[in-house]
Amino acid sequence: MRFEQVTIIGVGLIGGSVGLAVHARKLAARVVGVGRDSKTLARAVELGAIDSFTVELSAGVKDADLVVVCTPVDRIAEVILAAMPHVRSGTIFTDAGSTKQNILSSLAGRLPEHVAYVPAHPLAGAEKAGVEHARADLFESRITITTPGPKADPKAVGRVEAFWESLGTRVVRMLPGDHDCILASTSHLPHAVASGVAAVTPTDWLPLTAGGFRDVTRIAAGDPELWAAIFLANCDPVLAALSAFTARMADLTRLLNAGDGPGIVRWLTEAKQVRDALGS
Amino acid sequence: MRFEQVTIIGVGLIGGSVGLAVHARKLAARVVGVGRDSKTLARAVELGAIDSFTVELSAGVKDADLVVVCTPVDRIAEVILAAMPHVRSGTIFTDAGSTKQNILSSLAGRLPEHVAYVPAHPLAGAEKAGVEHARADLFESRITITTPGPKADPKAVGRVEAFWESLGTRVVRMLPGDHDCILASTSHLPHAVASGVAAVTPTDWLPLTAGGFRDVTRIAAGDPELWAAIFLANCDPVLAALSAFTARMADLTRLLNAGDGPGIVRWLTEAKQVRDALGS
Repeated sequence: MRFEQVTIIGVGLIGGSVGLAVHARKLAARVVGVGRDSKTLARAVELGAIDSFTVELSAGVKDADLVVVCTPVDRIAEVILAAMPHVRSGTIFTDAGSTKQNILSSLAGRLPEHVAYVPAHPLAGAEKAGVEHARADLFESRITITTPGPKADPKAVGRVEAFWESLGTRVVRMLPGDHDCILASTSHLPHAVASGVAAVTPTDWLPLTAGGFRDVTRIAAGDPELWAAIFLANCDPVLAALSAFTARMADLTRLLNAGDGPGIVRWLTEAKQVRDALGS
Repeated sequence: MRFEQVTIIGVGLIGGSVGLAVHARKLAARVVGVGRDSKTLARAVELGAIDSFTVELSAGVKDADLVVVCTPVDRIAEVILAAMPHVRSGTIFTDAGSTKQNILSSLAGRLPEHVAYVPAHPLAGAEKAGVEHARADLFESRITITTPGPKADPKAVGRVEAFWESLGTRVVRMLPGDHDCILASTSHLPHAVASGVAAVTPTDWLPLTAGGFRDVTRIAAGDPELWAAIFLANCDPVLAALSAFTARMADLTRLLNAGDGPGIVRWLTEAKQVRDALGS
């Protein structure tokens, strides 16, 4: 057993999957869930994601060895700050937020000596939100990015990275700014674009779509509140990714207006080379 | 047996799948393949997509009851015109092209009385081209759009629509211009956008992508020559769809710059409503 008590704050798709995976891999003697809605938390107990729950943050964290914050990104920093005074010395915090710099900026200079926070982002998710869709294998064969600062306690970093690895992910460590810039391109831009395509399609035409439309727009079914928070938390890198993408699309418009067949083939080939490098 | 001889011109993913489905459903006594590459055609015979083949268009069509043209869209009209003089009276042509108005414009006033052409577009495909990926069930539960003109022979239209239905598709009839406008939004725009996202992603970052990126960019692996031809054949509707999409993305940029959380939630919610209406 790696931990006596793991506390999960925010028991939705990600938090619930962390709980299921901790149970499946026997990583903690008990898993405590903290949230705002008792009914959802009771359902998480039924599903085996957590052993018990509380809606009182202080009660939920006071005996925790590890606190995993799985709330929307715009609430992670405030949750950590609110929990801090109630934890024992040596408690370690990690999170599953899709953005990192905004959280670290909010916490800068505000963390006491006796607790450690090791930022993490498991690259896993689904278009369906909520603990009902949580899965013990959600993290298997995925990557978790960690962004510990230069002053982070190496032992805490080691324990958190081992924790995410024990859930089935491979850990990649990088600077928070690099994380945000890369994720803006690899995750936030695709979400924006999927939503853009869906939104300009009249619903009358949906029966006349095929697999391509279905694939491209799938993630547009994601939770708008959650994604609005991610976009705002990572505003500048998302704007930069949108700008690079828009310029690329303007190239296609220019090539079409010029009737430039070989140019369009080149434009498509450059994209195909990237996609082929990813594999199916 | 509905037909004595079905001739398929262009035996790749779509043409090969037509052949396999015709065989599986026993719709013709024989299926003849016409193409330019004997080796590919021989492989199509091995795979059971066609019974025999020729690289001579005239020989391939002279005894056909039904000719299904499955070449890239920029070659469909010329193939029909080249085949026309060699067919028997009563031979019916159909096709599987992703655009319709360009083909009809090229053929306008050039079709003799004794043959009929009933334009069709089965909404099926895959990111993998070539007869190796052909499947007898490719068309099952899909839609085929037909765009017969007002002067089309109703009997020929009936036979072609029954043919596509017998392959497992549901037939929807519409005007060619409507087809092109709708497909620009539901098929050509998603392809362009998938390619745009893939192309602006450095390959070094591919290991840091998750399911969302994978889904959004999947169709960017499609054949660049094929898709360049589709974009050019449907240039104006594609430009219009790109323009509507670009305006929608500009709204997001504006909302992000303004830090307008509720506006971004609304922007994402409108997209989610469309995607949810489609179902998973």
